[in-house]
Amino acid sequence: MLPIRSYASDRMPTAAVLSIGDELVLGQITERNGGWLSAELLKLGLMVNEHRTVADDRLAICSALREMASRGALVVVTGGLGPTDDDLSREALADALGVELEEDGRALQNLLDVYRRRGRPMPVMNRKQALRPSGTRCIDNPHGTAPGIAARLGQSEVFLLPGPPNEMRPMFHDVVAPAVLGITARAGGLQIATASVHSCGLPESAAAQLIRPLMERGTNPLVGTTASGAVVTARIRAMGVAATDGALERAVQEVERAWAPYAFGRDGLTLPAALGEVLRRENAMLAVAESCTGGGVGAFVTSVPGSSCWFAGGFITYSNELKRELCGVSPALLAKHGAVSEEVARALAEGAADKCKCRFGLSVTGVAGPEGGSAEKPVGLVWVGLCDRGTGEAPVVTKARSFQLLGDRDTVRERIARVSLQWVRLAALGNGDVPLLWERPTQNVRA
Amino acid sequence: MLPIRSYASDRMPTAAVLSIGDELVLGQITERNGGWLSAELLKLGLMVNEHRTVADDRLAICSALREMASRGALVVVTGGLGPTDDDLSREALADALGVELEEDGRALQNLLDVYRRRGRPMPVMNRKQALRPSGTRCIDNPHGTAPGIAARLGQSEVFLLPGPPNEMRPMFHDVVAPAVLGITARAGGLQIATASVHSCGLPESAAAQLIRPLMERGTNPLVGTTASGAVVTARIRAMGVAATDGALERAVQEVERAWAPYAFGRDGLTLPAALGEVLRRENAMLAVAESCTGGGVGAFVTSVPGSSCWFAGGFITYSNELKRELCGVSPALLAKHGAVSEEVARALAEGAADKCKCRFGLSVTGVAGPEGGSAEKPVGLVWVGLCDRGTGEAPVVTKARSFQLLGDRDTVRERIARVSLQWVRLAALGNGDVPLLWERPTQNVRA
Repeated sequence: MLPIRSYASDRMPTAAVLSIGDELVLGQITERNGGWLSAELLKLGLMVNEHRTVADDRLAICSALREMASRGALVVVTGGLGPTDDDLSREALADALGVELEEDGRALQNLLDVYRRRGRPMPVMNRKQALRPSGTRCIDNPHGTAPGIAARLGQSEVFLLPGPPNEMRPMFHDVVAPAVLGITARAGGLQIATASVHSCGLPESAAAQLIRPLMERGTNPLVGTTASGAVVTARIRAMGVAATDGALERAVQEVERAWAPYAFGRDGLTLPAALGEVLRRENAMLAVAESCTGGGVGAFVTSVPGSSCWFAGGFITYSNELKRELCGVSPALLAKHGAVSEEVARALAEGAADKCKCRFGLSVTGVAGPEGGSAEKPVGLVWVGLCDRGTGEAPVVTKARSFQLLGDRDTVRERIARVSLQWVRLAALGNGDVPLLWERPTQNVRA
Repeated sequence: MLPIRSYASDRMPTAAVLSIGDELVLGQITERNGGWLSAELLKLGLMVNEHRTVADDRLAICSALREMASRGALVVVTGGLGPTDDDLSREALADALGVELEEDGRALQNLLDVYRRRGRPMPVMNRKQALRPSGTRCIDNPHGTAPGIAARLGQSEVFLLPGPPNEMRPMFHDVVAPAVLGITARAGGLQIATASVHSCGLPESAAAQLIRPLMERGTNPLVGTTASGAVVTARIRAMGVAATDGALERAVQEVERAWAPYAFGRDGLTLPAALGEVLRRENAMLAVAESCTGGGVGAFVTSVPGSSCWFAGGFITYSNELKRELCGVSPALLAKHGAVSEEVARALAEGAADKCKCRFGLSVTGVAGPEGGSAEKPVGLVWVGLCDRGTGEAPVVTKARSFQLLGDRDTVRERIARVSLQWVRLAALGNGDVPLLWERPTQNVRA
């Protein structure tokens, strides 16, 4: 048997996150606070080692609080602070502490003030929100009625915060973040730092192979890869002294070199934002003609603020009629080759670039499924066209390449949007002919 | 103090979900299996009362398994079954059971077969994936290398499944779902049933007010509301005999009546799919001209398979030049009123309908932010235009209405896409003049 290893050392304090709510645990709405809190705590140098979601159940919340507080230096709880009978976080914390609830005079006054400002009397049920376990303190909530609660449970600091993110997040920054800095300071300063490098167009296995020595267990900084759609990300974690001595930045640069030209950005930089940086530098505009993505490439591009500097717009040519009428694809071409073809992809890309007067025209036409596939053109087959009208005296160059994607309709559409934008980015960088993930082995980049 | 209530009765068995992975618990990637499993288990009549995520830590996984197995009839674990040193779910389960790992001959043969089909030898490290704790059994994985493991831990059935959803989900349906039916059968049959009704265009408070008696605590079926973007959903949960005696369906119908005409569908039906049903029935086609959404309305519409029957395509007129050149908006109009205006919204909607030869033309032009706002046209202001070219002798009618949305760029764009499609749906149903959420109080529906 392998030796049992424990993630947390004595030197490194850890945190836990508890989310409360029937709808969350039943899967009726998606729990989002846990991931956000984990990422924020990590930025502050504290690792979360457990995230738990339980129902609106006083016993379950109490048990979770006790178990989590026994294992770490911090427990952050969200939800269950509303005014209804279902909101039981206060009561459960009192149970875990073995104390009674009592009314907090200042919290009650704040509640009454909120309702006075709203111009209506406070409902009787809301008075419950001024209760806190004896010996704890209330945390002001500038954006709602539910105050938070700060407590000490055994060796752990416990914070109860309301569930709505717009209320929870400012309270986290105001009150929990300073407490975290105290915890890490007592443990001897920053213990962990993280960074990430994103790539698009490499298979995950090849990406991992390229940075294998950095991924070996025991290495510090340690690199792991995750794949999400067409994007493979290296997550780099530096522990102890490596968190502050420049080792993290060196590891980031090493990954970027190994993944060139596929690496497009670090940390929060998205693929369309990275594309935008290149197109702005090249003073080039992009237009699109989308069939199977139906506008998804444009929506992805325009998720970037300021994208109007490098994206003009284009066509959603979902019907064949619009491929002809809007983009000028000849009826003969459509009849002969079909909408999902190299020829139509090229014509659409040229139509987009010409009619929108942009340097680059990008087209996407494929079989997104689940219906519409055939032996010759199966579900997941997508042709992408790219027209480069060049600069100055350069000739117009139009290329098309085909991809075979796996997955359901949404997956096919999302992945091809990413890969096609990476193609534009690489082309703008003069690297448009490198192989791309999911490309079909034959028919590659025919000019 | 309030009496302590426990969520689960003796009669109702419960389940728990455990997700494994450093990246998950650190918030570097979003945990998605928990919500999916909870929803699937609920459909099968089994409530999840806890969801937990822990790091790749053998001790932590073992403790979680023991705690969760002691509380319910089923524990589903995802992740930690890969071939690397970080994959520790097998070892932790063996620890929890107090047994050793042993090699499963059939699982090993399956692994070797996978690699033979891939035409390369099995890496040595993958052999570990054929291990299982003594006395447990392996579960075939048709889509990957990692077999699952089924075990009994105390009174609980435990299933280890791989983390990737495309591998996990089929294995859940093949092996876990039948086990769940056994558990609920032993508990006396279906104990819980759920349904949902979706609306768009009502504020959540108004939606809740309209179905208040159904939301009162102690009611069975019990209704709760959740708001996600522009969509307010009623989640209806029937317990015990109400799960099977028709009470659920009656509650669903009651919500639909109360929310007319804003209720657009039940359970898995999306807003664009509901719009598609109406447009198909009316034999009407839709075209779009999108500015601030950049293709997002088209992408949302074409997320529906078969949407080509009622959606032709349209224009992404992100630049003012393309508003003129593609949609025929007059330069004078743009110069006088600006791109975000009633007049331009109307002209874009007419341009989309005319040039795409569709009955309905929908346009969206607004200030998505974070930059570009002004006192007169603040961030979040969006004008939506709708042109109805009518059928037969009916005259062309073009309307525009303005909305003031809160939230960041993504939120504004996503919400207005939903609200604008609901407007088209209501218009096609002859109800296009009812008020819609976030509409600005003045300037409503000027023809």
